[in-house]
Amino acid sequence: MPSWAWLLVALSLAALTANSTGAVAYKQSERNCSLSPPYLPSTALNTTLRLQDLRKEMLLRNVAAYIIPATDAHLSEYIAPRDARMAFMTGFTGSAGTAVVTQTKAALWTDSRYWVQAERQMDCHWELEKDVSISSVAQWLISEVPPGGEVGFDPFLFSLKTQEDYRLNLDSSNRTLKSVPVNLVDQVWKQRPPVLLYNLTRLPDRVIQRPWQMKVEHVRNQMRDNPYEPTALLLSALDETAWLFNLRGNDIPYNPFFYSYTLLTKDAIWLFLHTDRVTEELRVYLNASCVGSLCVQLRSYDAVRDDLKAYVAEPGVKVWIGTEYTNYALYEIITPEEKLMTSSYSPVLTTKAVKDETEQRILRDAHVRDAVAVIQLLMWLEKAVPEGKETELTAAQYVDKCRGKQKDSRGPSFETISASGPNAALAHYSPTEETIRRLTVDEMYLVDSGGQYLDGTTDITRTVHWGAPTAMQKEAFTRVLMGNIEISRTVFPSGTRGVNMEMLGRRALWEVGLNYGHGTGHGVGNYFGVHEWPVGFQSNNIPFRSGMFTSIEPGYYKENDFGIRIEDVAVIVPVNTKYGHNYVTFDTVSLVPYDRKLIDTTLLSSEQLRWLNKYYETIRRLVAPELDSQGLKEEKDWMLKHTEPFVEAASSASVWSSSLTLIALAVTLLRNII
Amino acid sequence: MPSWAWLLVALSLAALTANSTGAVAYKQSERNCSLSPPYLPSTALNTTLRLQDLRKEMLLRNVAAYIIPATDAHLSEYIAPRDARMAFMTGFTGSAGTAVVTQTKAALWTDSRYWVQAERQMDCHWELEKDVSISSVAQWLISEVPPGGEVGFDPFLFSLKTQEDYRLNLDSSNRTLKSVPVNLVDQVWKQRPPVLLYNLTRLPDRVIQRPWQMKVEHVRNQMRDNPYEPTALLLSALDETAWLFNLRGNDIPYNPFFYSYTLLTKDAIWLFLHTDRVTEELRVYLNASCVGSLCVQLRSYDAVRDDLKAYVAEPGVKVWIGTEYTNYALYEIITPEEKLMTSSYSPVLTTKAVKDETEQRILRDAHVRDAVAVIQLLMWLEKAVPEGKETELTAAQYVDKCRGKQKDSRGPSFETISASGPNAALAHYSPTEETIRRLTVDEMYLVDSGGQYLDGTTDITRTVHWGAPTAMQKEAFTRVLMGNIEISRTVFPSGTRGVNMEMLGRRALWEVGLNYGHGTGHGVGNYFGVHEWPVGFQSNNIPFRSGMFTSIEPGYYKENDFGIRIEDVAVIVPVNTKYGHNYVTFDTVSLVPYDRKLIDTTLLSSEQLRWLNKYYETIRRLVAPELDSQGLKEEKDWMLKHTEPFVEAASSASVWSSSLTLIALAVTLLRNII
Repeated sequence: MPSWAWLLVALSLAALTANSTGAVAYKQSERNCSLSPPYLPSTALNTTLRLQDLRKEMLLRNVAAYIIPATDAHLSEYIAPRDARMAFMTGFTGSAGTAVVTQTKAALWTDSRYWVQAERQMDCHWELEKDVSISSVAQWLISEVPPGGEVGFDPFLFSLKTQEDYRLNLDSSNRTLKSVPVNLVDQVWKQRPPVLLYNLTRLPDRVIQRPWQMKVEHVRNQMRDNPYEPTALLLSALDETAWLFNLRGNDIPYNPFFYSYTLLTKDAIWLFLHTDRVTEELRVYLNASCVGSLCVQLRSYDAVRDDLKAYVAEPGVKVWIGTEYTNYALYEIITPEEKLMTSSYSPVLTTKAVKDETEQRILRDAHVRDAVAVIQLLMWLEKAVPEGKETELTAAQYVDKCRGKQKDSRGPSFETISASGPNAALAHYSPTEETIRRLTVDEMYLVDSGGQYLDGTTDITRTVHWGAPTAMQKEAFTRVLMGNIEISRTVFPSGTRGVNMEMLGRRALWEVGLNYGHGTGHGVGNYFGVHEWPVGFQSNNIPFRSGMFTSIEPGYYKENDFGIRIEDVAVIVPVNTKYGHNYVTFDTVSLVPYDRKLIDTTLLSSEQLRWLNKYYETIRRLVAPELDSQGLKEEKDWMLKHTEPFVEAASSASVWSSSLTLIALAVTLLRNII
Repeated sequence: MPSWAWLLVALSLAALTANSTGAVAYKQSERNCSLSPPYLPSTALNTTLRLQDLRKEMLLRNVAAYIIPATDAHLSEYIAPRDARMAFMTGFTGSAGTAVVTQTKAALWTDSRYWVQAERQMDCHWELEKDVSISSVAQWLISEVPPGGEVGFDPFLFSLKTQEDYRLNLDSSNRTLKSVPVNLVDQVWKQRPPVLLYNLTRLPDRVIQRPWQMKVEHVRNQMRDNPYEPTALLLSALDETAWLFNLRGNDIPYNPFFYSYTLLTKDAIWLFLHTDRVTEELRVYLNASCVGSLCVQLRSYDAVRDDLKAYVAEPGVKVWIGTEYTNYALYEIITPEEKLMTSSYSPVLTTKAVKDETEQRILRDAHVRDAVAVIQLLMWLEKAVPEGKETELTAAQYVDKCRGKQKDSRGPSFETISASGPNAALAHYSPTEETIRRLTVDEMYLVDSGGQYLDGTTDITRTVHWGAPTAMQKEAFTRVLMGNIEISRTVFPSGTRGVNMEMLGRRALWEVGLNYGHGTGHGVGNYFGVHEWPVGFQSNNIPFRSGMFTSIEPGYYKENDFGIRIEDVAVIVPVNTKYGHNYVTFDTVSLVPYDRKLIDTTLLSSEQLRWLNKYYETIRRLVAPELDSQGLKEEKDWMLKHTEPFVEAASSASVWSSSLTLIALAVTLLRNII
């Protein structure tokens, strides 16, 4: 699934609704604030009272504007309902956006995939702003806040970087940012959902190579070796603590995370969490009854700021934080400067990025079982769609069901993107009542889905056509595939950055003036987030090294018409080269064939064709035994049919035509001789 | 020429000297500080007294360490002798390095190409440090300066970024950076060369499309349109002022620059320079007798800091600076913060980066004449080298002479890199008495040279072999060429960053485990610097747009053996694509054929071969008339011979062999019929 944290080009949703034939019209479902009185659909939330309440809170604290981001205190991509403050204030429930409120105005910034949804969910107190850059928000603030005015924000919901970006943008404007330690939305949110105190689970030994004690030692060694001599490491991202202790939770949809922080010092481990949820068994597991250097001291989740402050007050300490995932509230108490040490990512995140042997093996295994589920979906659709009864929604449900039947399944890793025809032109579309399309042989269909398994997280996209694709669809699909293959087959020095290679995913498209508006891939975890940073092809990702897993997912989206994405997960593996050492390449671990009907082999180079045939051999080799063992005979036949080797169309044709000429010549000559 | 500001991987010089057959041994020419007394070659400078003097100055100002960079107050890549403070202090005259002095120690940081030279030029007061990162210097400072100690630097010689990098690296160490407004080296440099007051020249109208008044208006429009509402723009880089006023000077070797700053406000123009050198004619040209918004007020070069301070003291002003080329001395006086506005590059640098139509035309023209000079060199070498009398030095002199004869020549644009055999493995080698090699048919030869012309600056590298190259040399050369072609032929959206495409220059090398340790290209100017920022393939370069010129220069260097680089200058031009708009590609303007003997066409794809043949057609079309008009018959024949089209070796062979089989079959069949 493309991560929209790295959306490059906004894809417009606006024009879509008018022309869509299969979808229910929902023109009147959008608000119309230019009427008097304004027209509001039933889906719009009345925000009058909560805005009044919030403005009172703002007045009390003398802030002229208040910024409400869509994240939580751990700067998570997915958030729990209790952290959906932006949605509570605005009515808008999309996954990305920023709201700002002043005494007279209120505005929401969100990207193009959500504009229609925002028009349907917001009342007329809210402006919709479409340029989502921080500089655009800052420009608005400068125009709405009088000089000298203060702009408030909850420091728990800003990363250092977000705070810095706002500060730089407001810097010479005589409007100042003000960290307000109490969240003002929470003050007015009467029925804010509580933390649901699910128990935590520890991972079973069979999916673990490194016990938590070993990981702690490893991280402490990195602290010890660091020339700046940090005495403690603060872990803020939810997957950092979960990884360190081999624990999983259930606080965030689709992500097996639990609310937590860790302060790891040279001789102590402070684990901040809701201590009620730690069972006696887990206390033993965590060695929680003592205070030694390998004893985990359990502390209250809400005490993190005070406890950190107390630690920082000690003489001679220095706290290491990763700037990308530490919130401003914790950062700002680490003073004076010489008590702070920063890197973009904590050593836990960079260590976690390289999977150990067990993690690699089980993540590959999970992809074999995951391929079975996706093959089941594709085979079923091939038969069911022509009968005309299936929809985007039934397809999504089908694949979820297939995954659910696989061993160690823990549900989907994100909401399945099941999109037909024009809906697929929205790279992040999920079917809703208003937009849902029936699947037909006349439209292309894109399905981007993934599973959580105890041994790994998966994410795969296939695009298919059950009828007769147009020449343009076939060309675009083939060029997207060429992009996927060009990245996958590239040999490069270990340590190369993904951002410096991702154009290989676009180059075949660029050649004919096509492109796509999202990133080219992201890390994936072992029963963790489906977008696992800091691995990937973005500019703030870390360099690629052997043992990292990333998705590779070029695409092409034709507005109002169709969408193509081909997404595989690959692991970086060492490769032998003729002259050099320390070179690596990708090994694709997603194992589902592409739609043959959409591949124009004359466009492929012989290297690309060779790669494709080798990949299909791998699918056969790895998936056939799994299908056998699950007794899926029909699926196996389907898979074998769809992984038949391709022949080199173009060059054999040209050989043939040259040969024919020569034969004709030879025959003529012979005739003359005879 | 590869810019070493962007050196990626250090190429080791150390092992070279032992095995080099053609070069004079110079083992004893290096210092040996482990002997007692130490052995010092005659080339080493005795720095005892100047170190004593400097340390006294440091004591006076209470700085525990003093940093001496190799740049000037304009953060120039090339500097005048009077700015060679690092060389004065250390004896080391290489173009890149940083010296640091404490009361007890002195150290020089420089990269691998200069290690031998440093060992020959420095006495034993100086340590040689080989990791040139700022963090390495900072580590050294932390180990040598006691806690609480101050590290002094001349704020005129640090960019904001350099200061920031040192600050961040020293931040939590309890050592502080101290801006010392007087240069301490200048205090002890008794015979520091004065500024040589050469007159300035204005460019003739025939090479100008935009008079300076038009440029001033254009830049003022950008100030006006900027939402942060700057009231003034400060220009610090030497090419900024030279470009704005269409003036050139002679203060810096190889670069037609003159010492200057400009403060451009909404209604005034302050030009800071040595006013003595402005002739009456130039005063008229600059409209220097008035104070209106298009009158240039001439101010003393040395007054810039005070005058800027006075301007900043005015109410309501805001000064726009480019952070990459403004020194810390000017930056630090722009306070409070709301009087400062920053971007990485000034609007002059980003405007200058896109050449206007005239600039594009004349820069292309200059490359046609430049090609004549390089063709003359290559033709001459082909004849002269087998006779055994030519050396790296005579070859360098020859090409300089050939360029000198071309119309509007203004000398070389940098010191010619003329390197045979192992010397070429040092990407930035220039022949010296100790290292010079005779040219022979047994070694590969690399020549990287360029010219200044009134209409443009050139930079081209060719690598040749006059005898029988090894298979490995041929493969490496072909793969370097493939890299050059892959970048050159790529179609990409306007606005793509070079850094995200430069791997195309490496990919064919990576495939077999080869690589190169420098950047892939840099902007070039119109009678300006040969490394013209901010265009190029580095991470801090700006996105590519139509009208920009850049070098493309992949290479490969085999230590102690040979070096390959293929460098061309190309202009970015619009291209029509099948589906899209706003796509561009490269059009190569360097027009000299590559050594055919080194090209293994079986490695090239048919697209690459097609590109190569088209390029050779272009050379013929553009250079033949110039050779004709200069009456260079022999050179024309040479050029025609070396630009013969290539045939598709690999695929035609395969067609042929398949065809033979079919013919044989047909013949057999016919026989049977008959």
